[in-house]
Amino acid sequence: MADGTYPTALGASSPDRITLLGADLADDVMGSVGFGELAFWLATQRRPSRGETRVFEAVLAALADHGFTPTAIVTRLTYLSAPDSVQGALAAGLLGGGSRFLGVTEDCGRFLHDVLAGVDGALPTDDAGWDAIALETVTAQRAARRFVPGLGHHVHKDGDPRTPRLFAIAEEEGVAGPHLALFAAIGRVHPQVLGRTLPLNGAGVCGAALADLGLPMELLRGFALLARTAGLIGQLAEELRRPVANDIFLSVDLNNRSIAPEPYEPGSAHG
Amino acid sequence: MADGTYPTALGASSPDRITLLGADLADDVMGSVGFGELAFWLATQRRPSRGETRVFEAVLAALADHGFTPTAIVTRLTYLSAPDSVQGALAAGLLGGGSRFLGVTEDCGRFLHDVLAGVDGALPTDDAGWDAIALETVTAQRAARRFVPGLGHHVHKDGDPRTPRLFAIAEEEGVAGPHLALFAAIGRVHPQVLGRTLPLNGAGVCGAALADLGLPMELLRGFALLARTAGLIGQLAEELRRPVANDIFLSVDLNNRSIAPEPYEPGSAHG
Amino acid sequence: MADGTYPTALGASSPDRITLLGADLADDVMGSVGFGELAFWLATQRRPSRGETRVFEAVLAALADHGFTPTAIVTRLTYLSAPDSVQGALAAGLLGGGSRFLGVTEDCGRFLHDVLAGVDGALPTDDAGWDAIALETVTAQRAARRFVPGLGHHVHKDGDPRTPRLFAIAEEEGVAGPHLALFAAIGRVHPQVLGRTLPLNGAGVCGAALADLGLPMELLRGFALLARTAGLIGQLAEELRRPVANDIFLSVDLNNRSIAPEPYEPGSAHG
Amino acid sequence: MADGTYPTALGASSPDRITLLGADLADDVMGSVGFGELAFWLATQRRPSRGETRVFEAVLAALADHGFTPTAIVTRLTYLSAPDSVQGALAAGLLGGGSRFLGVTEDCGRFLHDVLAGVDGALPTDDAGWDAIALETVTAQRAARRFVPGLGHHVHKDGDPRTPRLFAIAEEEGVAGPHLALFAAIGRVHPQVLGRTLPLNGAGVCGAALADLGLPMELLRGFALLARTAGLIGQLAEELRRPVANDIFLSVDLNNRSIAPEPYEPGSAHG
Repeated sequence: MADGTYPTALGASSPDRITLLGADLADDVMGSVGFGELAFWLATQRRPSRGETRVFEAVLAALADHGFTPTAIVTRLTYLSAPDSVQGALAAGLLGGGSRFLGVTEDCGRFLHDVLAGVDGALPTDDAGWDAIALETVTAQRAARRFVPGLGHHVHKDGDPRTPRLFAIAEEEGVAGPHLALFAAIGRVHPQVLGRTLPLNGAGVCGAALADLGLPMELLRGFALLARTAGLIGQLAEELRRPVANDIFLSVDLNNRSIAPEPYEPGSAHG
Repeated sequence: MADGTYPTALGASSPDRITLLGADLADDVMGSVGFGELAFWLATQRRPSRGETRVFEAVLAALADHGFTPTAIVTRLTYLSAPDSVQGALAAGLLGGGSRFLGVTEDCGRFLHDVLAGVDGALPTDDAGWDAIALETVTAQRAARRFVPGLGHHVHKDGDPRTPRLFAIAEEEGVAGPHLALFAAIGRVHPQVLGRTLPLNGAGVCGAALADLGLPMELLRGFALLARTAGLIGQLAEELRRPVANDIFLSVDLNNRSIAPEPYEPGSAHG
Repeated sequence: MADGTYPTALGASSPDRITLLGADLADDVMGSVGFGELAFWLATQRRPSRGETRVFEAVLAALADHGFTPTAIVTRLTYLSAPDSVQGALAAGLLGGGSRFLGVTEDCGRFLHDVLAGVDGALPTDDAGWDAIALETVTAQRAARRFVPGLGHHVHKDGDPRTPRLFAIAEEEGVAGPHLALFAAIGRVHPQVLGRTLPLNGAGVCGAALADLGLPMELLRGFALLARTAGLIGQLAEELRRPVANDIFLSVDLNNRSIAPEPYEPGSAHG
Repeated sequence: MADGTYPTALGASSPDRITLLGADLADDVMGSVGFGELAFWLATQRRPSRGETRVFEAVLAALADHGFTPTAIVTRLTYLSAPDSVQGALAAGLLGGGSRFLGVTEDCGRFLHDVLAGVDGALPTDDAGWDAIALETVTAQRAARRFVPGLGHHVHKDGDPRTPRLFAIAEEEGVAGPHLALFAAIGRVHPQVLGRTLPLNGAGVCGAALADLGLPMELLRGFALLARTAGLIGQLAEELRRPVANDIFLSVDLNNRSIAPEPYEPGSAHG
């Protein structure tokens, strides 16, 4: 700031008191605020309702661990190589949380958000209205030869079990909003444009739900990373008891095959 | 493994089902397991009781955000410099979670654990018994000119408000065990050895509580990092709305003072 | 590979021999290949000429350290917070090497590359020909309200001293190619489009030179990061002898100003 | 500093000039200082001699790439998962540069340094003198059941080819000092203490050479990381042309074996 101070509503402390988001940390947060609730509160500076917290924690559960993903393998290998630094092993795993493996959540949330921002007039109030927007959206993506984020899954081809569950929880809690409505409509109408039926995937529905919860678009990926941090700690805990990282390393190293160098040629039209 | 497989009890999926820790993710985890509870479950492969979860989440709340710590500043500056990578900004912040700023939790938990592992015979059943062990422990540390982890705080000199609160919550939930008992005894007896009264700090009591919850010693730092991930997302969310990173950067860059190089001389006795 | 092997031309070893890029590491690399030369060789799998190495090392020198940048501050703060992990401090600093502070090198190299790839027919052989392409390029960028990467500098408003120097070295070594030629032409013609004269900055000319050296476009940022790794080690070495990180931390922490939480409102048209 | 300024001898700039270590970057560094030389200069704030640079670059060459190490696999997997962030892929790989895989260089350098610092009186001037110190050192390590850093190699059991080569280069350049002398003596005398002959490994001799060059002990690991940064860029360049990361990922994921959760039991004597 021009006055040389750095404003913050987050943690602050005086000799006899610690506050977090304006609340007394010891008296009003510890013991009464769950961790998912706190993470939501920290990100939005407003305390979520019980229903919002339940949906948010369902999203975190859906994203926490997907088995031997690249991020999990990376965390285990980094711990093998540098067991002195748990923070390094976790950070290395999180660095895989980019556009391909954890990015769908953010991509889908942002995509739906942008479509909604471009709607003229009031949003629909029934499925037919949503279907019309979805049809236009999927058609435009196809014309531009772009994927629709959140559509398709390489394993759950006939349906991702997380998707109907998250829709149901959001409905139960009364926090399903326009992002989920549009996402559901995309699920209904896309076959008539694409000529085949694809599942609405779990990462995508999580993005839609996070957007409906009013969380910042710029940080949707951050919540996937928060969930994954818990998962990576689980991976490390299992690695400590049933180590596999050295076997993974050896399975690669022992199967290396030396080849001759291949001088790089830049691929320019005139290169 | 010798058979070329990689065993895991964490996430697994088939075309129509996803399991996590043997439970059905959609039906039995999403919507019914809170995020703190899930993180505990992932780390120990056993589902915690309601009381254990409450203590665990109180610890996470205590450690989530402490204002403009080095980790928070680092995350904000990294985001300023590379806004294309939220994962990089979070990972950079977590890398500061080492021996100095977030390490006390782990150091204290391990220290108490090691003292308990060295006790001959049964553990004490009353304060007098714990005080005797604590007295011996603090005396030995002083003789070795080593600090007692968890003792002292540069701001909360007359008492860290998180400490009595976490003791109280653990008592209420019936999960206070030997690590907290020993830590409390250290709080009672250290003045007669050190000649002055120091507070039991919040990071230390968190380590004692995590150890009493039966979490793996090797990963105590990991839980502090999990808590901090939520805090760093809060820092980024605030940075997006009230940016301070550029001011911090300029406050350093504009106050740089060019000095002449100072050739390094190795500091060996014979160097 | 389908056959279960992992081909590589990089490091390999047998009990009595180590090879790197097909060369004997001990006999033919150690003692006869400089570090810049080796980095080039590793990235392209072809050994650079002496002149190419000189230009490449001039680029690395230009990018190694720019004083108290965010990356330097981050490395120092992370080391303050976690002195047990030099790798963590360096990694944290590198994570700031993204689109804003170190990205210009890559952005400029790719931009020039893309323009060249779109040229119909043969490339120009004189300044007039390059100027025509540059004029069209700058005009198109302006029409699209996009910056021309590599143009402008907030400090070196009348010229970045690295730019003419790198042009001169590349000329001396006979490795100046179409990327540098186009970049120079942009420097000549942009005032007639933009109505003011901006300097060709050092990061930009480095990107042009790396592209002319035939290095992979996808990794131009990687060379900036390699250069910066040396710089960050210098920052740590200085921090060990003249520590400033704690002062930086305190200058922020002591000037924090607690404000009330500001509940986040999503910024959708319909939010 | 108390005066609110941050002193540095590294990069500085004014509108028309950039300096690095007090030298004019454009005129006196670019084009005339090699990258290894510059890295040495940045770390010590003194410009190395030609011979020192040659030894330093030989060390960097020895450590740059060792094929499919965990760090290389991690960088490739992270790039697979987050191709949007080259900085994240490199940082993740460097985070594996800890105590096990890249740490021997630092461990060995520090170990030799500490032995030398404990020698009473003048250092030896002949092999017999060094052998006496080495004998005492190896005997003490064995008595304490500790390894001698730098001794032994799982592949190069009859001798690591890098070791005699680095000794020879250091001799040629006249920069072999007490750390290398002690390391050589350990190579001569350890069989009479340990009862078998182990090779002096390449990582160890690199640590000895870096110590003899007068580089800061705290940062020896940093030079291994600098070397590895070049290697990891090479790994990424090869991954772009001959991708293997997805095959590595699938080789793990497709061979996962679901097992039942195994509730963790803390391993305390009283747990």
